[in-house]
Amino acid sequence: LVVVATPLWAGQAPLSSWQDGSSRKAIEAFVAKVSTEGSPAYVPPAERIAVFDNDGTLWAEQPMYFQLIFAVDRVKAMAPEHPEWKAQEPFASVLKGDIGKALAGGTSAILELVGATHGNITTDEFDAAATAWLETARHPRTGLKYNEMVYLPMLELLDYLRANDFATYIVSGGGIDFMRPWTEEVYGIPPEQVVGSSVKTTYEVRDGVPTLVRAPEIDFIDDKEGKPVGIHSHIGRRPIMAVGNSDGDFQMLEWVTAREGASLGVIIHHTDAEREWAYDRDSHIGRLDRGLDEGPDRGWVIVDMKNEWRQVFPTGGK
Amino acid sequence: LVVVATPLWAGQAPLSSWQDGSSRKAIEAFVAKVSTEGSPAYVPPAERIAVFDNDGTLWAEQPMYFQLIFAVDRVKAMAPEHPEWKAQEPFASVLKGDIGKALAGGTSAILELVGATHGNITTDEFDAAATAWLETARHPRTGLKYNEMVYLPMLELLDYLRANDFATYIVSGGGIDFMRPWTEEVYGIPPEQVVGSSVKTTYEVRDGVPTLVRAPEIDFIDDKEGKPVGIHSHIGRRPIMAVGNSDGDFQMLEWVTAREGASLGVIIHHTDAEREWAYDRDSHIGRLDRGLDEGPDRGWVIVDMKNEWRQVFPTGGK
Ligand SMILES: [Ca+2]
Ligand SMILES: [Ca+2]
Repeated sequence: LVVVATPLWAGQAPLSSWQDGSSRKAIEAFVAKVSTEGSPAYVPPAERIAVFDNDGTLWAEQPMYFQLIFAVDRVKAMAPEHPEWKAQEPFASVLKGDIGKALAGGTSAILELVGATHGNITTDEFDAAATAWLETARHPRTGLKYNEMVYLPMLELLDYLRANDFATYIVSGGGIDFMRPWTEEVYGIPPEQVVGSSVKTTYEVRDGVPTLVRAPEIDFIDDKEGKPVGIHSHIGRRPIMAVGNSDGDFQMLEWVTAREGASLGVIIHHTDAEREWAYDRDSHIGRLDRGLDEGPDRGWVIVDMKNEWRQVFPTGGK
Repeated sequence: LVVVATPLWAGQAPLSSWQDGSSRKAIEAFVAKVSTEGSPAYVPPAERIAVFDNDGTLWAEQPMYFQLIFAVDRVKAMAPEHPEWKAQEPFASVLKGDIGKALAGGTSAILELVGATHGNITTDEFDAAATAWLETARHPRTGLKYNEMVYLPMLELLDYLRANDFATYIVSGGGIDFMRPWTEEVYGIPPEQVVGSSVKTTYEVRDGVPTLVRAPEIDFIDDKEGKPVGIHSHIGRRPIMAVGNSDGDFQMLEWVTAREGASLGVIIHHTDAEREWAYDRDSHIGRLDRGLDEGPDRGWVIVDMKNEWRQVFPTGGK
């Protein structure tokens, strides 16, 4: 891994890859007021919980969710054991390299891909598969490892919050078991602070070995209305700060910023077609429409990536 | 609350209400070897995770699970709004005070009681109901508040483990939302380290107010094979120590003690009819049979409450 335990930005001032713009000022003002004893907005450390979406918020998500690329790569790797896939959609199109056609089936096609590639496997085997893929796979456009396509300003923000006694959590529509093998090394977020979508999992003793087995069946989708539910289930307290990038985060920001006492909602707006990608209202991936309409009136901070971030990826990138 | 943030045992030696017997020695030896740098059994602090069952392990569970007493009390409190309950089991028997008959319906009767008393309510309302009940309700035999019927030796053990950089979690068949309002104050275990059974919960905006609503439907049962699953979902790492008291904890101990590297399984055996209750193989509540048969061969520590605990409850009790 290139992004290692000693952060690349170590020794620099906090948030140094953020321009001194309105978003940075709002974040710093919020952290100052909740961290200052005697401040009317003071929040004790144990309640300083910040939740972060992952895809499009902490790492990139174009040209499609990285976990979906993982699923596509696994279909190819598993194809020799599944000759029937040559005649069966969405697998046939994936094997022909026509991902657009494979995904034309929408959610049911995605669920089929995920079920076949993420289920019928032990949690240890799945962990190893995700880890091996991240070591070897490269992004089609940048040639970077996927875990190098994380946003430097967000790594700095996570660090800055933790330095101010916040606990940082991921709350993502992505798979909880897909993220946990690498979030600690890349983001400094340990497995127990990762909330995500999951498949049904059962406990079995196989040949005397206690084993957790993933079924090819979705158990929980941690997106939209699911995000406050996932937070309640895993954390059991209402966070004081939420950061997302799409309408899939709307309910999470709504719930967090409706709490009594100080709170902060932040939306990362993808405005930088040169260094990253520019997309919002009309995008199939990371669609951001209602958040742009209602966010400002709700007091949410809208981060303009192009104009507010000095650098996007730690190692350069696109 | 009588058991407050400054523990009653503060200032005493660790584990001072444990006799200097085989269980205490085994626990101390385990903690020493995983905490000593350079020891072949050394475990880094982030992986020093200990999981505890609650009912019968951290607090008492006789004459029936305290959460079931809460449900019974709620049936009585809610009865005026439910005139139909007078003619409908299991409610009719509860209202007549015949709990034995009410529970004769077994699991389905319990699920009906739990559904009616734990569902169709917001999470905030449920939190308030559980908190109010704990403030006012008294145990039928000891006259103590239920959260005074916690085991002093276990409070000491939790403290001792945390002093050695363990993270302590509850993993209980009891309701996660029933425990979270009080576990931090009583056990020093914050909400995010409580794993338990849950009902389906949905997010709704009610009259403009973001709200989490509990459905009268079980979502997850954190017992038996469910315990390793709940641990994997919430913690995402394999604990190194597990403590329980019944066969409902068997799989949790089995999974934890099958890990590579050092591990410890502990069973609290209720042997003290004088100071607490004596029950095991034939008990409807907290049945312990397979654990007694197989535990010793598996290297699990069996704690004889009568002979190994100098004191049971912090304030005396039964
Ligand atoms: Ca996103
Ligand atoms: Ca128990």
